[in-house]
Amino acid sequence: MVLKVVIIGAGFGGLRLARELNNKRGLEIVLIDKVNYHQFQPLLYQVATAGLDASNISFPLRKVFQRSKNVRIRLAELKEIVSAQNKIVTSNEEINYDILVLATGTETNFFGNQQLMEYAFPMKSTVEALQLRHNLIRNFEDALLVKDPGELQRLMNIVVVGGGPTGVELSGALAEMKRYVLPKDYPELDFGNMNIYLVEGGSKTLGNMSEKSAEDSQRYLTRLGVKLLTNTIVSNFDGSTVQLKDGNTIPAKTVIWAAGVTGAAPPGFDKALIARGNRLIVDRQMKLKGFTNIYVIGDLAYMETPKYPQGHPQLASVAIQQATSLARNLIRIINSDNKLEEFEYHDKGTMATVGRNLAVCDIPIPKAFGTKLHFGGFFAWLIWMSLHLMLILGVKNRFFVFSNWVYNYFTYDQSLRLIFPEFYKSRKKI
Amino acid sequence: MVLKVVIIGAGFGGLRLARELNNKRGLEIVLIDKVNYHQFQPLLYQVATAGLDASNISFPLRKVFQRSKNVRIRLAELKEIVSAQNKIVTSNEEINYDILVLATGTETNFFGNQQLMEYAFPMKSTVEALQLRHNLIRNFEDALLVKDPGELQRLMNIVVVGGGPTGVELSGALAEMKRYVLPKDYPELDFGNMNIYLVEGGSKTLGNMSEKSAEDSQRYLTRLGVKLLTNTIVSNFDGSTVQLKDGNTIPAKTVIWAAGVTGAAPPGFDKALIARGNRLIVDRQMKLKGFTNIYVIGDLAYMETPKYPQGHPQLASVAIQQATSLARNLIRIINSDNKLEEFEYHDKGTMATVGRNLAVCDIPIPKAFGTKLHFGGFFAWLIWMSLHLMLILGVKNRFFVFSNWVYNYFTYDQSLRLIFPEFYKSRKKI
Repeated sequence: MVLKVVIIGAGFGGLRLARELNNKRGLEIVLIDKVNYHQFQPLLYQVATAGLDASNISFPLRKVFQRSKNVRIRLAELKEIVSAQNKIVTSNEEINYDILVLATGTETNFFGNQQLMEYAFPMKSTVEALQLRHNLIRNFEDALLVKDPGELQRLMNIVVVGGGPTGVELSGALAEMKRYVLPKDYPELDFGNMNIYLVEGGSKTLGNMSEKSAEDSQRYLTRLGVKLLTNTIVSNFDGSTVQLKDGNTIPAKTVIWAAGVTGAAPPGFDKALIARGNRLIVDRQMKLKGFTNIYVIGDLAYMETPKYPQGHPQLASVAIQQATSLARNLIRIINSDNKLEEFEYHDKGTMATVGRNLAVCDIPIPKAFGTKLHFGGFFAWLIWMSLHLMLILGVKNRFFVFSNWVYNYFTYDQSLRLIFPEFYKSRKKI
Repeated sequence: MVLKVVIIGAGFGGLRLARELNNKRGLEIVLIDKVNYHQFQPLLYQVATAGLDASNISFPLRKVFQRSKNVRIRLAELKEIVSAQNKIVTSNEEINYDILVLATGTETNFFGNQQLMEYAFPMKSTVEALQLRHNLIRNFEDALLVKDPGELQRLMNIVVVGGGPTGVELSGALAEMKRYVLPKDYPELDFGNMNIYLVEGGSKTLGNMSEKSAEDSQRYLTRLGVKLLTNTIVSNFDGSTVQLKDGNTIPAKTVIWAAGVTGAAPPGFDKALIARGNRLIVDRQMKLKGFTNIYVIGDLAYMETPKYPQGHPQLASVAIQQATSLARNLIRIINSDNKLEEFEYHDKGTMATVGRNLAVCDIPIPKAFGTKLHFGGFFAWLIWMSLHLMLILGVKNRFFVFSNWVYNYFTYDQSLRLIFPEFYKSRKKI
């Protein structure tokens, strides 16, 4: 028996699953993604702020499976699932499957606001991070030419929306750019006038982490000079003015939207299968509700367990553990072993970095000692760096990211501030 | 007295001039370029063939002049020179000058053929090299889907036009990709069917180098499997078939045009000032014929000297030496020293690389011993690498290029084969 497994999406979940099934007898794998590389999303903010090259955190899929006997890669977009015929339709061709695994993750949620969608920058992909980088730099070039003080202020303000890890890390990195890099590059501009706003709807940043981590992150951000606006909702952005729900406005050309994601569920599924956040409801084996041969893993999957009655957090580590569990089950199926395992998430901790020497870290510990162990500051930052280095795919990328970080640490200054018009043209500007 | 020097173009000549005049009393410099980085053109072919990252050979101009007291940088395109009023008009503003230096180099010469201009890839800039890289990779992704053998052949053929250093280096690098990288990435494709043609109008490759170097390069190319067509002229390309002047055709989607350049002279100059190759005629002090305060340096300058009665070769070393000489003269002018020097080019040799361990190198020696000293093979390749490493701007870029080369040398395999749609969309495809 040969099972043909089609995996949609090569993020943390899909890629891990394909790697676990690589060269396993009885399995044929087709891995489909819109781009030809795995994107290491946790470091996208460093690509956007010109701290890392895009290639440092983008790993070509074909390279991962160069010696594979059973994994084929297709660069395509999923158009339709024809589950009655066990086939999918992509932008290029039709592909039959015995087992379909959806690992398409999430996409930026603009909550239906067309203007935000058009003018604010999302930051969920390498290309989006590059677009953001190019526009950031381009704005300072434009600022050199502007005579009107109001217009100048608009070019020098940056508004980050959303106080989760992405928003916190990005605004911290921008604050460091403002302090260490930009005044040297643009001596003609007064960076005292540059403001970085972090706007968060809730009462604190890093709301999903421990109380201590949330507090620390706020303290670090303030120390770096980020203007933190909590309990504040952005209602609109027309490309030059940010409208807040309380009636206030912020003049700014650059708004970065890190305020929410929504499951990138393929079209055509019954509403009964869709849970909060547009996620697909799965059982403890990641099997899509009501289907026998469609699985969902990672951010797109919604699974209720006694430990997580409202579903799992949307984290890389959940996706990776689900992929590993599903891989084991698929191998059991091939071996006609009917004792399939049920998924249980093992929380190994969460972390976020705010800036140089500044990070926060929560590690779960036995209940007797409290709920979470919290680290902050330099030590957390070291943990954060080591862990991310380990997670990056490929010795070479690891080496280059590490070299870049060391270089950055001592010089405060990268040389990646290149503008390729291809990237900033592609987003509409006022 | 303060002299305002406006330099157009931050290639080898313009950048060197600005660096020589950096922080010199009595001089105010404005350096203008279309892009915000210096492009290290000799290694563009390695960017195109995914051997180096674009950022490795692109150095941000603002970083070079971060601590400068007298150099300002403007990202703009030159639109017009109003010499009667000593001012230029750029895409952004008007700028007055006391002294204007044109260092705009050359651009790709398609000899007026509109179809070639539309479908063939030039490779004179970082962005063009990236466009080429993305299309090369994209073609193999497309080849996986194609059923028609003729169409498959079109996708797998690459035609390089022009047997100068660019054409030779590029076709050598493509041949190595074909041998070492592509079969591992695309096990489903038969690379026995991939052909790399190098089409040269003259009777040999590297026609400007010594007879020995020309012979060696041809031998190396053949050894690498490049199909060399000398005495062959490309007359047209419609995006899927290359038309040769002798009536033959080559089916190919990818044509790289390295067959000629033309001086990027700003519009509006009298025809009497323009020499062969659209270059501007200058005197021995790089002063534009008939002008007192406009200079031209580098590839755009045409200067006849007793040693070079038909002008200098268009090489980085000429541009750099002219920039240094002009800088000395400008400093003399500021110091009211009327003894200005006349330019004399000191040929330190020329070289080209064909592939791994394969390069050619001509070094001038005293007449008594012959005309040129010739090296080939591994030793020439080592010289080539060391010299290019030294020429690259910035310790960090040098380190990263070196690391990339070492990695490549031992693994035969980079991980830069990423497709960003922004780049391949920007060129028309059939």
